[in-house]
Amino acid sequence: MKKEIKKINAAILIIGNEILSGRTQDKNISFLSKWLNTNCGITVKEVRIIPDIEKTIIENIKLLSKKFNYVFTTGGIGPTHDDITACSISKAFKVKYEYHSEAYQILQKYYGIKKFNDGRKKMAKMPRGAKLIYNPSSAAPGFIIKNVLSLPGVPSILNSMIDNCKRYLIKGSMVHSQTVNLYTVESNISKQLGLIQRKYKKFVEIGSYPFFRLGKIGVSIVTRSTSLTKLKNVNKELIKLIKSKKIKVLKI
Amino acid sequence: MKKEIKKINAAILIIGNEILSGRTQDKNISFLSKWLNTNCGITVKEVRIIPDIEKTIIENIKLLSKKFNYVFTTGGIGPTHDDITACSISKAFKVKYEYHSEAYQILQKYYGIKKFNDGRKKMAKMPRGAKLIYNPSSAAPGFIIKNVLSLPGVPSILNSMIDNCKRYLIKGSMVHSQTVNLYTVESNISKQLGLIQRKYKKFVEIGSYPFFRLGKIGVSIVTRSTSLTKLKNVNKELIKLIKSKKIKVLKI
Repeated sequence: MKKEIKKINAAILIIGNEILSGRTQDKNISFLSKWLNTNCGITVKEVRIIPDIEKTIIENIKLLSKKFNYVFTTGGIGPTHDDITACSISKAFKVKYEYHSEAYQILQKYYGIKKFNDGRKKMAKMPRGAKLIYNPSSAAPGFIIKNVLSLPGVPSILNSMIDNCKRYLIKGSMVHSQTVNLYTVESNISKQLGLIQRKYKKFVEIGSYPFFRLGKIGVSIVTRSTSLTKLKNVNKELIKLIKSKKIKVLKI
Repeated sequence: MKKEIKKINAAILIIGNEILSGRTQDKNISFLSKWLNTNCGITVKEVRIIPDIEKTIIENIKLLSKKFNYVFTTGGIGPTHDDITACSISKAFKVKYEYHSEAYQILQKYYGIKKFNDGRKKMAKMPRGAKLIYNPSSAAPGFIIKNVLSLPGVPSILNSMIDNCKRYLIKGSMVHSQTVNLYTVESNISKQLGLIQRKYKKFVEIGSYPFFRLGKIGVSIVTRSTSLTKLKNVNKELIKLIKSKKIKVLKI
């Protein structure tokens, strides 16, 4: 019996002027992409980085939530004036922006009634109907509404919460990947690589990425497929190509 | 006389499956944003990361080149089958994809006639009417057509080429920025910070970003404005706030 391939995709929406201005180096994109790929068989198809502007957030949430199976937002769910993600998502989905009673209780318990000020209370405000994504490191929960999952921007906090997203996600077929690192230049193998890619167009994605290591230049050939058999066949052809060109393979 | 403020913006379009899959950590976004900001007074308003799919590249080039003053693409201008940026941009602008005679000569001279194979020749193919962005580190030029500037994905090569983009760019008013690092939590100052932001809404952008350093938590307050006077006024108000709350400032 042929195994059915289930393709599930996602977009990542990074919300924050600090990433756009170059002040902060983003670390969430590669973490989220890898995690979704290896843990859930979900492929990230697009990433956008946008400023803290309500209109822009609303437009992007509307568009991306229609276009992709899931949208992951990062940033803008803290206590300050520039944290407008939850409010903007409420507007995008035309639902009330209000206190989530469980989130309110979690935060009140965490800070204590006396220290539970307006800024902290703000973090309990979410779109009506949102479900919580628990936060084991600093209490303030993320949330999911429809197919949009909202996570914080601080990488260590996001990383600690990611496993709590799992229950809300439908898994896709796992994408297998293999990398071969060669001591050659891209143009030495580009023609043959193109022919192999054409042959396996529908089943295997072949990427070619130059690298520099210890003063030597090389190429990483990355093959990706939901079919292990097809992946093995492509790699057999790659080995043939490598042997015929007498290319040295880098052992890692 | 009042100085006229000239706002010039840009989008960055990162083209490459290796960034989307999380395999490669992007380093170009923050480099480009900072460079544009500090050297040209150009503000990056949106970043997108998309796969090596012709249709997707074409759609994004059309849309972003209309929406922003400049579009910077990175990736997909090498010699292999997955390098389809130049061809896709040609299609987006409905111009021929053909050898650029100067680029051809540069590459032929660099590699020598014998080693100038098909893969390497491909790197001389560009949209008709493109102007070259010279590459001092590995010869293969980038290009500009209309308001789209195409650069390679390898950060060291991109960095070496960036100054050669300058001649094609109209400069905007410089955005000044100041950062104050405080040993406090966001919620301790969120209310007052919101009030200051409201007062200077049109002129100064105030961002608040939590940090963790040597086991202590803190907040970086980043203020940005084209007006140095307005920036100074905001910072005076910030100092008042810091003093009134007896917050310790982190010296860097």
